[in-house]
Amino acid sequence: MSAHSKLYEGKAKIIYSTEEPEILLADFKDDATAFNAQKRGNITGKGIINCIISCKLFQQLESLGIKTHYIDSPKPNQMRVKAVKIVPIEIVVRNIAAGSLCQQTGLPLGTELKQPLVEFYYKNDQLGDPLLTRDRIRLLELATPEQVDEITHLALQINNFLIDFFQRCGITLVDFKLEFGLDSQQQILLADEISPDTCRLWDISAANDPDRRVLDKDRFRRDMGNVENAYQEVLNRVLKAVENNN
Amino acid sequence: MSAHSKLYEGKAKIIYSTEEPEILLADFKDDATAFNAQKRGNITGKGIINCIISCKLFQQLESLGIKTHYIDSPKPNQMRVKAVKIVPIEIVVRNIAAGSLCQQTGLPLGTELKQPLVEFYYKNDQLGDPLLTRDRIRLLELATPEQVDEITHLALQINNFLIDFFQRCGITLVDFKLEFGLDSQQQILLADEISPDTCRLWDISAANDPDRRVLDKDRFRRDMGNVENAYQEVLNRVLKAVENNN
Repeated sequence: MSAHSKLYEGKAKIIYSTEEPEILLADFKDDATAFNAQKRGNITGKGIINCIISCKLFQQLESLGIKTHYIDSPKPNQMRVKAVKIVPIEIVVRNIAAGSLCQQTGLPLGTELKQPLVEFYYKNDQLGDPLLTRDRIRLLELATPEQVDEITHLALQINNFLIDFFQRCGITLVDFKLEFGLDSQQQILLADEISPDTCRLWDISAANDPDRRVLDKDRFRRDMGNVENAYQEVLNRVLKAVENNN
Repeated sequence: MSAHSKLYEGKAKIIYSTEEPEILLADFKDDATAFNAQKRGNITGKGIINCIISCKLFQQLESLGIKTHYIDSPKPNQMRVKAVKIVPIEIVVRNIAAGSLCQQTGLPLGTELKQPLVEFYYKNDQLGDPLLTRDRIRLLELATPEQVDEITHLALQINNFLIDFFQRCGITLVDFKLEFGLDSQQQILLADEISPDTCRLWDISAANDPDRRVLDKDRFRRDMGNVENAYQEVLNRVLKAVENNN
C-alpha cells in the first residue's frame, strides 16, 4: 500500500488514493478551522491525536457491530479507510444544549436535553452548513427517507456507546458531529472521524467551571488557551479507557 | 362592541380588547417592516387592503369547514376575531422556491417543488425567526406532535384552496405564512391574516418577468417600487374572484 495522488484536501484531512481502488488513505492535519473556515490556526499534534482517538473509537464501534470506514492505521496520523461516497449531511447528536442550538433556540448553554436530539446540517460551506429538516433533505435529494431513518438509528446507537465510553474517561459527551458514506454496495458506513474536533467534551471533574471543563475544539474557537493540553488529555484518557476495557 | 385597551401592538396590527372577553379587535396598520423589522416603511392603504383580503379569504375557508378566528369586520381596516393563544410557530407553505429557502438550500428562485413544503419557524424576533425541526418544536415545547400534525394537515388544505383561488385571480401562489391559535377549548383556529404581506404572489400574465410579476411585500422588501399598486391589484382580483364565486 502506498499513497498516490491527493484526491481531496479538506479542512482537517487530506485524502489520497491507494493501489486498491476501494481503499483510501486519510492523512490527519494539525490545521484547525472554525466558523466555516473564517478562523484558521494550527493545533500542534492534533493530526496524530485525532487519528489515534478516531481509530480507537472506530475499533470499539466495529466490535459492537457498527460498520465504519476504518481499516487500519499505517502511521500515527494516517488511517486507511474504505472508499465511500460521503452523504452531504452532517449529523449532530446533542445531549446537552451548546453551540448553534443555543443561538437558534435561546436555550441556555448546558441545558440537559430530556432525550438526545439528532439533527441534520447541509454539508455545504458556501451556504454555511444550514440546519436541515427531513423535508429539505428529501427536496434536495441528499438522502432517501429510509437512509435518514437508518442514519438516525445508527447515530443514537453510537451516542449510547460514546456517552458510556467517555463517562469512563471522566468526560461528559455534550454533542458530536458524524458523517456517513455509502460504499460500492450502497451500505451505510460511519466515516470521517470522532475526535475533540468533532465532539464537545466536558471534564466531569471541572463540571461547574465553564472554562476549565472544556476539552475540545471550543478552546480553539473561543480563544480559551491550553488547546494542545486539552487534546492530549482526551487522548490519554481514551487510551486508558480502551486499555481497561481489553 | 367598542374597542377598549390596546393589548398588543405588532408590526402590522394592533390588538384591542372588547366588551366580550372572548372577542378581540384587530386593527390593520399601513406600517410595513421587513428583515426582522430592520427595514421600516409605510404602504398607503395597506391596512384596509390586507384586512379586506383576509376577511374574504377567512370567509371562504370557513365555508370549506376550516375554523378561523374571523368573526366580522366592523370597519374596512378592522377585524373582530375570537381570542386565541397564538402558537409561537410561523407555518410557511411553499409551492415554488423563494426567499430563505433559496438562501439556505441553494435552490434557484422559482424552482417548482414536486410537492408543497410545510415548514416551521420560531416566532421569535430576538432570535430572527429561525427554522424549526419537529424535534426542536418538541424540545422547546412550542406545540405537541399532535398539534404539529393537525396544523400541517390544515396548512395543506388551506394551500389547496388558496392555489385554486389565486389561480382564478390570475395569480400563482408561490408561498405563504400562517399562524394558528388555540381557543379556550384548546381548538386550533387559523389566526393572523392572509394578505400580500404574508404571501408571495406572482402575476401569471407576467410570469417570465421577475420584476413585473411580483404582487406582494417583496416589492417593499426589495425596493421594487409600485408597492401600493400591487396591493390594490391583488385586492381588485380577490374581490372579483369572490364575486364570481357567489
